[in-house]
Amino acid sequence: MQLSELSERSGVSVASVKYYLREGLLSPGTPVSARKAEYDEEHLRRLRLVRAMLTVGGMSVAQARDVLAVAEDPAFGRHERLGVAQYMLPPHVTPPAEDAPERDAWNALRGEVLQLLQRELGWRIHDAAPAVDTLTQAISTLRALGYRSSTDVLRHYAEALQPIAEAEYQVIEEFPVMEEAIEAMIAYTLLYEPVLLSLRRLAHEDVSAARLLHAEPTDAPA
Amino acid sequence: MQLSELSERSGVSVASVKYYLREGLLSPGTPVSARKAEYDEEHLRRLRLVRAMLTVGGMSVAQARDVLAVAEDPAFGRHERLGVAQYMLPPHVTPPAEDAPERDAWNALRGEVLQLLQRELGWRIHDAAPAVDTLTQAISTLRALGYRSSTDVLRHYAEALQPIAEAEYQVIEEFPVMEEAIEAMIAYTLLYEPVLLSLRRLAHEDVSAARLLHAEPTDAPA
Repeated sequence: MQLSELSERSGVSVASVKYYLREGLLSPGTPVSARKAEYDEEHLRRLRLVRAMLTVGGMSVAQARDVLAVAEDPAFGRHERLGVAQYMLPPHVTPPAEDAPERDAWNALRGEVLQLLQRELGWRIHDAAPAVDTLTQAISTLRALGYRSSTDVLRHYAEALQPIAEAEYQVIEEFPVMEEAIEAMIAYTLLYEPVLLSLRRLAHEDVSAARLLHAEPTDAPA
Repeated sequence: MQLSELSERSGVSVASVKYYLREGLLSPGTPVSARKAEYDEEHLRRLRLVRAMLTVGGMSVAQARDVLAVAEDPAFGRHERLGVAQYMLPPHVTPPAEDAPERDAWNALRGEVLQLLQRELGWRIHDAAPAVDTLTQAISTLRALGYRSSTDVLRHYAEALQPIAEAEYQVIEEFPVMEEAIEAMIAYTLLYEPVLLSLRRLAHEDVSAARLLHAEPTDAPA
Protein backbone atom coordinates (compact mmCIF):
# COMPACT_ATOMS: atom_id res chain seq x y z
CA MET A 1 0.00 0.00 0.00
CA GLN A 2 1.04 3.62 -0.46
CA LEU A 3 1.72 6.06 2.35
CA SER A 4 -1.74 7.64 1.97
CA GLU A 5 -3.44 4.27 2.45
CA LEU A 6 -1.19 3.45 5.40
CA SER A 7 -2.29 6.74 6.96
CA GLU A 8 -5.95 6.06 6.28
CA ARG A 9 -5.95 2.50 7.60
CA SER A 10 -4.03 3.41 10.75
CA GLY A 11 -5.87 6.65 11.47
CA VAL A 12 -2.46 8.36 11.79
CA SER A 13 -2.02 11.55 9.72
CA VAL A 14 0.38 11.54 6.74
CA ALA A 15 2.53 14.18 8.50
CA SER A 16 2.85 11.97 11.59
CA VAL A 17 3.72 8.90 9.51
CA LYS A 18 6.49 10.92 7.80
CA TYR A 19 7.73 12.11 11.19
CA TYR A 20 7.89 8.54 12.54
CA LEU A 21 9.81 7.50 9.38
CA ARG A 22 12.34 10.33 9.91
CA GLU A 23 12.76 9.43 13.58
CA GLY A 24 13.34 5.79 12.72
CA LEU A 25 10.30 4.55 14.64
CA LEU A 26 8.97 3.10 11.40
CA SER A 27 11.21 1.31 8.88
CA PRO A 28 11.29 2.70 5.30
CA GLY A 29 8.95 1.18 2.72
CA THR A 30 10.17 -0.65 -0.36
CA PRO A 31 10.96 1.96 -3.06
CA VAL A 32 8.84 1.53 -6.19
CA SER A 33 9.86 4.77 -7.93
CA ALA A 34 12.00 7.82 -7.15
CA ARG A 35 9.24 9.37 -5.05
CA LYS A 36 7.09 6.43 -3.99
CA ALA A 37 7.47 3.54 -1.58
CA GLU A 38 5.32 0.55 -0.83
CA TYR A 39 4.24 -0.35 2.73
CA ASP A 40 2.84 -3.62 4.08
CA GLU A 41 0.86 -5.08 7.00
CA GLU A 42 3.96 -5.06 9.16
CA HIS A 43 4.25 -1.29 8.76
CA LEU A 44 0.62 -0.95 9.73
CA ARG A 45 1.18 -3.03 12.87
CA ARG A 46 4.28 -1.05 13.83
CA LEU A 47 2.42 2.21 13.26
CA ARG A 48 -0.34 1.16 15.65
CA LEU A 49 2.26 0.29 18.27
CA VAL A 50 4.09 3.61 17.82
CA ARG A 51 0.83 5.49 18.13
CA ALA A 52 -0.06 3.56 21.30
CA MET A 53 3.34 4.35 22.83
CA LEU A 54 3.38 8.05 21.98
CA THR A 55 -0.24 9.11 22.31
CA VAL A 56 -1.89 6.63 24.69
CA GLY A 57 1.31 5.83 26.61
CA GLY A 58 2.68 9.37 26.72
CA MET A 59 6.22 8.10 25.98
CA SER A 60 8.89 10.28 24.40
CA VAL A 61 10.31 9.35 20.99
CA ALA A 62 13.53 8.23 22.73
CA GLN A 63 11.59 5.96 25.12
CA ALA A 64 9.57 4.53 22.23
CA ARG A 65 12.85 3.77 20.43
CA ASP A 66 14.17 1.94 23.51
CA VAL A 67 11.03 -0.17 23.72
CA LEU A 68 11.21 -1.02 20.01
CA ALA A 69 14.90 -1.97 20.34
CA VAL A 70 14.06 -4.50 23.07
CA ALA A 71 10.92 -5.66 21.25
CA GLU A 72 13.06 -6.58 18.24
CA ASP A 73 16.04 -8.06 20.10
CA PRO A 74 15.87 -11.86 19.94
CA ALA A 75 18.04 -12.02 23.08
CA PHE A 76 15.03 -10.99 25.15
CA GLY A 77 12.06 -13.21 25.95
CA ARG A 78 8.43 -12.20 25.80
CA HIS A 79 8.34 -11.41 29.55
CA GLU A 80 11.23 -8.93 29.28
CA ARG A 81 9.81 -7.33 26.14
CA LEU A 82 6.44 -6.70 27.75
CA GLY A 83 8.18 -5.63 30.96
CA VAL A 84 10.39 -2.99 29.35
CA ALA A 85 7.35 -1.45 27.68
CA GLN A 86 5.38 -1.45 30.94
CA TYR A 87 8.25 0.12 32.90
CA MET A 88 8.37 3.01 30.41
CA LEU A 89 4.72 3.95 30.98
CA PRO A 90 4.00 7.00 33.13
CA PRO A 91 3.87 7.88 35.96
CA HIS A 92 7.49 7.82 37.07
CA VAL A 93 8.10 8.87 40.65
CA THR A 94 11.53 10.27 41.50
CA PRO A 95 12.78 9.06 44.91
CA PRO A 96 14.50 11.61 47.22
CA ALA A 97 18.18 12.23 46.29
CA GLU A 98 20.78 9.82 47.76
CA ASP A 99 21.98 12.46 50.26
CA ALA A 100 18.54 13.97 51.09
CA PRO A 101 17.56 13.68 54.77
CA GLU A 102 14.32 11.81 53.89
CA ARG A 103 16.16 9.20 51.81
CA ASP A 104 16.62 6.76 54.72
CA ALA A 105 12.91 6.79 55.54
CA TRP A 106 12.14 6.28 51.83
CA ASN A 107 14.47 3.29 51.57
CA ALA A 108 13.01 1.72 54.71
CA LEU A 109 9.42 2.13 53.49
CA ARG A 110 10.28 0.88 49.99
CA GLY A 111 11.91 -2.15 51.59
CA GLU A 112 8.74 -2.87 53.58
CA VAL A 113 6.64 -2.66 50.41
CA LEU A 114 8.94 -5.07 48.54
CA GLN A 115 9.00 -7.44 51.52
CA LEU A 116 5.21 -7.62 51.54
CA LEU A 117 4.87 -8.15 47.80
CA GLN A 118 7.80 -10.48 47.13
CA ARG A 119 8.04 -12.47 50.35
CA GLU A 120 4.58 -12.47 51.87
CA LEU A 121 2.49 -12.46 48.69
CA GLY A 122 5.11 -14.29 46.64
CA TRP A 123 4.85 -11.92 43.67
CA ARG A 124 7.64 -12.39 41.11
CA ILE A 125 8.45 -8.73 40.56
CA HIS A 126 11.73 -6.96 39.92
CA ASP A 127 13.28 -4.95 42.79
CA ALA A 128 13.56 -1.94 40.48
CA ALA A 129 9.93 -1.95 39.25
CA PRO A 130 8.83 1.72 38.97
CA ALA A 131 5.38 0.88 40.38
CA VAL A 132 7.10 0.13 43.71
CA ASP A 133 8.24 3.77 43.82
CA THR A 134 4.72 4.97 43.05
CA LEU A 135 3.40 2.81 45.90
CA THR A 136 6.07 4.06 48.29
CA GLN A 137 5.24 7.67 47.49
CA ALA A 138 1.49 7.18 47.95
CA ILE A 139 1.93 5.60 51.40
CA SER A 140 4.42 8.23 52.41
CA THR A 141 2.01 11.06 51.39
CA LEU A 142 -0.84 9.44 53.35
CA ARG A 143 1.36 9.23 56.43
CA ALA A 144 2.53 12.85 56.05
CA LEU A 145 -1.15 13.90 56.08
CA GLY A 146 -1.66 12.05 59.35
CA TYR A 147 -3.47 8.95 58.07
CA ARG A 148 -2.51 5.55 59.35
CA SER A 149 -1.33 3.71 56.28
CA SER A 150 0.44 0.46 56.94
CA THR A 151 1.79 -1.80 54.24
CA ASP A 152 -0.73 -4.31 55.65
CA VAL A 153 -3.53 -2.40 53.97
CA LEU A 154 -1.81 -3.11 50.66
CA ARG A 155 -2.45 -6.81 51.10
CA HIS A 156 -6.22 -6.36 50.74
CA TYR A 157 -5.83 -4.25 47.62
CA ALA A 158 -3.34 -6.70 46.17
CA GLU A 159 -5.66 -9.65 46.74
CA ALA A 160 -8.63 -7.87 45.19
CA LEU A 161 -6.61 -6.84 42.14
CA GLN A 162 -5.04 -10.21 41.41
CA PRO A 163 -8.08 -11.70 39.60
CA ILE A 164 -8.40 -8.50 37.53
CA ALA A 165 -4.74 -8.73 36.50
CA GLU A 166 -5.13 -12.42 35.61
CA ALA A 167 -8.11 -11.74 33.35
CA GLU A 168 -6.39 -8.78 31.70
CA TYR A 169 -3.24 -10.74 31.07
CA GLN A 170 -5.25 -13.43 29.29
CA VAL A 171 -6.45 -10.84 26.79
CA ILE A 172 -2.86 -9.75 26.07
CA GLU A 173 -1.78 -13.38 25.67
CA GLU A 174 -4.23 -13.75 22.80
CA PHE A 175 -1.97 -11.60 20.60
CA PRO A 176 0.75 -13.95 19.32
CA VAL A 177 2.64 -11.26 17.36
CA MET A 178 4.96 -9.44 19.79
CA GLU A 179 4.22 -5.95 18.48
CA GLU A 180 0.50 -6.48 18.83
CA ALA A 181 0.93 -7.86 22.34
CA ILE A 182 2.96 -4.81 23.42
CA GLU A 183 0.42 -2.48 21.83
CA ALA A 184 -2.43 -4.26 23.61
CA MET A 185 -0.53 -4.21 26.91
CA ILE A 186 -0.05 -0.43 26.68
CA ALA A 187 -3.66 0.18 25.67
CA TYR A 188 -5.09 -2.10 28.37
CA THR A 189 -2.79 -0.89 31.11
CA LEU A 190 -3.52 2.79 30.55
CA LEU A 191 -7.03 2.89 29.12
CA TYR A 192 -8.50 0.66 31.82
CA GLU A 193 -7.04 2.84 34.57
CA PRO A 194 -9.92 5.36 34.41
CA VAL A 195 -12.32 2.39 34.28
CA LEU A 196 -10.99 1.04 37.58
CA LEU A 197 -10.95 4.43 39.26
CA SER A 198 -14.39 5.53 38.20
CA LEU A 199 -16.01 2.19 39.07
CA ARG A 200 -14.42 2.47 42.52
CA ARG A 201 -16.00 5.91 43.02
CA LEU A 202 -19.37 4.66 41.87
CA ALA A 203 -19.07 1.68 44.21
CA HIS A 204 -18.41 4.15 47.06
CA GLU A 205 -21.58 5.99 46.12
CA ASP A 206 -23.55 2.75 46.19
CA VAL A 207 -22.14 1.70 49.58
CA SER A 208 -22.89 5.15 50.98
CA ALA A 209 -26.46 5.04 49.64
CA ALA A 210 -26.99 1.57 51.12
CA ARG A 211 -25.81 2.62 54.57
CA LEU A 212 -26.97 6.18 54.86
CA LEU A 213 -30.15 6.53 52.85
CA HIS A 214 -31.56 3.55 54.68
CA ALA A 215 -30.70 5.13 58.02
CA GLU A 216 -32.38 8.42 57.08
CA PRO A 217 -36.04 7.63 56.32
CA THR A 218 -37.54 10.29 54.06
CA ASP A 219 -41.06 10.02 55.45
CA ALA A 220 -40.16 10.28 59.14
CA PRO A 221 -42.69 12.21 61.24
CA ALA A 222 -41.56 15.78 62.03
CA MET B 1 -4.37 29.24 69.83
CA GLN B 2 -2.79 32.00 67.76
CA LEU B 3 -2.45 32.01 64.00
CA SER B 4 1.19 30.89 64.21
CA GLU B 5 0.27 27.82 66.25
CA LEU B 6 -2.66 27.05 63.92
CA SER B 7 -0.16 27.15 61.05
CA GLU B 8 2.31 24.94 62.86
CA ARG B 9 -0.21 22.31 63.96
CA SER B 10 -1.85 22.10 60.54
CA GLY B 11 1.37 22.22 58.54
CA VAL B 12 -0.20 24.99 56.41
CA SER B 13 1.95 28.13 55.98
CA VAL B 14 0.88 31.39 57.71
CA ALA B 15 0.49 33.01 54.26
CA SER B 16 -1.88 30.25 53.12
CA VAL B 17 -3.93 30.44 56.33
CA LYS B 18 -4.35 34.20 55.78
CA TYR B 19 -5.35 33.56 52.16
CA TYR B 20 -8.01 31.04 53.21
CA LEU B 21 -9.32 33.56 55.77
CA ARG B 22 -9.58 36.26 53.09
CA GLU B 23 -11.34 33.87 50.70
CA GLY B 24 -13.84 32.88 53.38
CA LEU B 25 -12.78 29.21 53.40
CA LEU B 26 -11.91 29.58 57.07
CA SER B 27 -14.09 31.55 59.50
CA PRO B 28 -12.42 34.44 61.40
CA GLY B 29 -10.99 33.76 64.84
CA THR B 30 -12.29 35.42 68.02
CA PRO B 31 -10.60 38.85 68.31
CA VAL B 32 -8.51 39.19 71.49
CA SER B 33 -6.81 42.50 70.59
CA ALA B 34 -6.73 44.90 67.65
CA ARG B 35 -4.18 42.72 65.82
CA LYS B 36 -4.69 39.27 67.31
CA ALA B 37 -7.36 36.60 67.09
CA GLU B 38 -7.80 33.29 68.84
CA TYR B 39 -8.42 30.04 66.91
CA ASP B 40 -9.73 26.70 68.15
CA GLU B 41 -9.85 22.98 67.26
CA GLU B 42 -12.67 23.61 64.83
CA HIS B 43 -10.46 25.97 62.83
CA LEU B 44 -7.77 23.31 62.77
CA ARG B 45 -10.25 20.74 61.48
CA ARG B 46 -11.55 23.09 58.80
CA LEU B 47 -8.01 23.95 57.75
CA ARG B 48 -7.17 20.29 57.21
CA LEU B 49 -10.30 19.90 55.08
CA VAL B 50 -9.51 23.01 53.02
CA ARG B 51 -5.96 21.77 52.44
CA ALA B 52 -7.27 18.35 51.39
CA MET B 53 -9.70 19.93 48.92
CA LEU B 54 -7.23 22.36 47.37
CA THR B 55 -3.96 20.46 47.36
CA VAL B 56 -4.85 16.76 47.41
CA GLY B 57 -8.20 17.18 45.64
CA GLY B 58 -7.06 19.79 43.12
CA MET B 59 -10.30 21.77 43.58
CA SER B 60 -10.56 25.48 42.84
CA VAL B 61 -11.37 27.91 45.66
CA ALA B 62 -14.89 28.29 44.21
CA GLN B 63 -15.41 24.51 44.19
CA ALA B 64 -14.11 24.23 47.75
CA ARG B 65 -16.59 26.94 48.79
CA ASP B 66 -19.46 24.98 47.19
CA VAL B 67 -18.46 21.82 49.06
CA LEU B 68 -18.23 23.70 52.36
CA ALA B 69 -21.65 25.31 51.78
CA VAL B 70 -23.24 21.86 51.38
CA ALA B 71 -21.18 20.41 54.23
CA GLU B 72 -22.62 23.04 56.58
CA ASP B 73 -26.20 23.03 55.31
CA PRO B 74 -28.41 21.07 57.72
CA ALA B 75 -30.89 20.45 54.89
CA PHE B 76 -28.49 17.89 53.43
CA GLY B 77 -27.87 14.43 54.85
CA ARG B 78 -24.48 12.79 55.22
CA HIS B 79 -24.82 10.90 51.92
CA GLU B 80 -25.39 14.12 49.96
CA ARG B 81 -22.57 15.94 51.74
CA LEU B 82 -20.05 13.24 50.96
CA GLY B 83 -21.49 12.94 47.44
CA VAL B 84 -21.11 16.62 46.58
CA ALA B 85 -17.47 16.53 47.68
CA GLN B 86 -16.78 13.38 45.66
CA TYR B 87 -18.45 14.78 42.52
CA MET B 88 -16.14 17.84 42.69
CA LEU B 89 -12.97 15.72 42.58
CA PRO B 90 -11.06 15.55 39.30
CA PRO B 91 -11.11 14.25 36.63
CA HIS B 92 -14.13 15.79 34.93
CA VAL B 93 -14.80 14.58 31.43
CA THR B 94 -16.72 16.91 29.10
CA PRO B 95 -19.21 15.01 26.89
CA PRO B 96 -19.47 16.03 23.21
CA ALA B 97 -21.62 19.16 22.65
CA GLU B 98 -25.41 18.65 22.33
CA ASP B 99 -25.29 19.27 18.56
CA ALA B 100 -22.00 17.44 17.86
CA PRO B 101 -22.30 14.49 15.43
CA GLU B 102 -20.84 12.06 18.03
CA ARG B 103 -23.32 13.07 20.71
CA ASP B 104 -25.88 10.38 19.82
CA ALA B 105 -23.29 7.60 20.07
CA TRP B 106 -22.12 9.04 23.39
CA ASN B 107 -25.65 9.12 24.81
CA ALA B 108 -26.29 5.54 23.70
CA LEU B 109 -23.07 4.26 25.25
CA ARG B 110 -23.62 6.22 28.47
CA GLY B 111 -27.11 4.74 28.65
CA GLU B 112 -25.66 1.22 28.32
CA VAL B 113 -23.19 1.92 31.13
CA LEU B 114 -25.94 3.21 33.44
CA GLN B 115 -28.17 0.28 32.56
CA LEU B 116 -25.45 -2.19 33.57
CA LEU B 117 -24.62 -0.44 36.84
CA GLN B 118 -28.09 0.56 38.01
CA ARG B 119 -30.28 -2.23 36.66
CA GLU B 120 -28.06 -5.26 36.37
CA LEU B 121 -25.73 -4.67 39.30
CA GLY B 122 -28.30 -2.75 41.33
CA TRP B 123 -25.94 0.07 42.23
CA ARG B 124 -27.68 3.05 43.80
CA ILE B 125 -25.91 5.78 41.86
CA HIS B 126 -27.11 9.10 40.50
CA ASP B 127 -27.72 9.38 36.73
CA ALA B 128 -25.51 12.47 36.65
CA ALA B 129 -22.50 10.96 38.47
CA PRO B 130 -19.35 12.34 36.77
CA ALA B 131 -17.64 8.94 37.02
CA VAL B 132 -20.20 7.62 34.50
CA ASP B 133 -18.83 10.14 31.98
CA THR B 134 -15.26 9.04 32.71
CA LEU B 135 -16.29 5.43 32.12
CA THR B 136 -18.11 6.29 28.90
CA GLN B 137 -15.06 8.12 27.57
CA ALA B 138 -12.68 5.28 28.42
CA ILE B 139 -14.81 2.68 26.61
CA SER B 140 -15.30 4.97 23.67
CA THR B 141 -11.49 5.55 23.36
CA LEU B 142 -10.83 1.80 23.50
CA ARG B 143 -13.36 1.22 20.73
CA ALA B 144 -11.90 4.03 18.61
CA LEU B 145 -8.50 2.27 18.84
CA GLY B 146 -10.08 -0.92 17.56
CA TYR B 147 -10.32 -2.89 20.81
CA ARG B 148 -13.43 -4.82 21.62
CA SER B 149 -14.71 -3.20 24.79
CA SER B 150 -18.20 -4.18 25.77
CA THR B 151 -19.96 -2.92 28.87
CA ASP B 152 -19.99 -6.59 29.89
CA VAL B 153 -16.29 -6.34 30.73
CA LEU B 154 -17.22 -3.67 33.26
CA ARG B 155 -19.13 -6.23 35.29
CA HIS B 156 -15.94 -8.11 36.21
CA TYR B 157 -14.16 -4.93 37.25
CA ALA B 158 -17.18 -3.79 39.22
CA GLU B 159 -17.43 -7.08 41.09
CA ALA B 160 -13.72 -7.08 41.96
CA LEU B 161 -13.86 -3.48 43.18
CA GLN B 162 -16.94 -3.81 45.36
CA PRO B 163 -15.15 -5.37 48.38
CA ILE B 164 -12.42 -2.70 48.13
CA ALA B 165 -15.05 0.05 48.17
CA GLU B 166 -16.84 -1.55 51.15
CA ALA B 167 -13.63 -1.68 53.19
CA GLU B 168 -12.68 1.88 52.29
CA TYR B 169 -16.10 3.18 53.17
CA GLN B 170 -15.84 1.63 56.62
CA VAL B 171 -12.73 3.71 57.29
CA ILE B 172 -14.57 6.90 56.31
CA GLU B 173 -17.53 5.95 58.51
CA GLU B 174 -15.24 5.95 61.54
CA PHE B 175 -15.07 9.76 61.38
CA PRO B 176 -18.24 10.99 63.09
CA VAL B 177 -17.52 14.71 62.54
CA MET B 178 -18.70 15.65 59.05
CA GLU B 179 -15.66 17.75 58.15
CA GLU B 180 -13.30 14.97 59.09
CA ALA B 181 -15.33 12.44 57.12
CA ILE B 182 -15.22 14.62 54.00
CA GLU B 183 -11.50 15.20 54.44
CA ALA B 184 -10.89 11.46 54.83
CA MET B 185 -13.09 10.69 51.81
CA ILE B 186 -11.05 13.07 49.64
CA ALA B 187 -7.72 11.75 50.92
CA TYR B 188 -8.71 8.09 50.54
CA THR B 189 -10.36 8.51 47.17
CA LEU B 190 -7.40 10.28 45.58
CA LEU B 191 -4.36 9.01 47.46
CA TYR B 192 -5.29 5.35 47.09
CA GLU B 193 -5.71 5.75 43.33
CA PRO B 194 -1.95 5.34 42.65
CA VAL B 195 -1.97 2.42 45.11
CA LEU B 196 -4.59 0.58 43.05
CA LEU B 197 -2.95 1.35 39.73
CA SER B 198 0.58 0.41 40.73
CA LEU B 199 -0.49 -2.82 42.43
CA ARG B 200 -2.35 -3.74 39.25
CA ARG B 201 0.83 -3.24 37.19
CA LEU B 202 2.88 -5.29 39.65
CA ALA B 203 0.23 -8.02 39.54
CA HIS B 204 0.56 -8.03 35.73
CA GLU B 205 4.32 -8.48 36.12
CA ASP B 206 3.75 -11.41 38.48
CA VAL B 207 1.23 -13.10 36.16
CA SER B 208 3.58 -12.61 33.21
CA ALA B 209 6.51 -14.09 35.17
CA ALA B 210 4.40 -17.06 36.22
CA ARG B 211 3.31 -17.85 32.67
CA LEU B 212 6.30 -16.91 30.59
CA LEU B 213 9.40 -17.53 32.69
CA HIS B 214 8.13 -21.02 33.40
CA ALA B 215 7.51 -21.66 29.70
CA GLU B 216 11.00 -20.49 28.68
CA PRO B 217 13.50 -22.79 30.43
CA THR B 218 16.86 -21.07 30.74
CA ASP B 219 18.88 -24.29 30.45
CA ALA B 220 17.20 -25.66 27.33
CA PRO B 221 19.56 -27.44 24.93
CA ALA B 222 20.53 -25.31 21.94
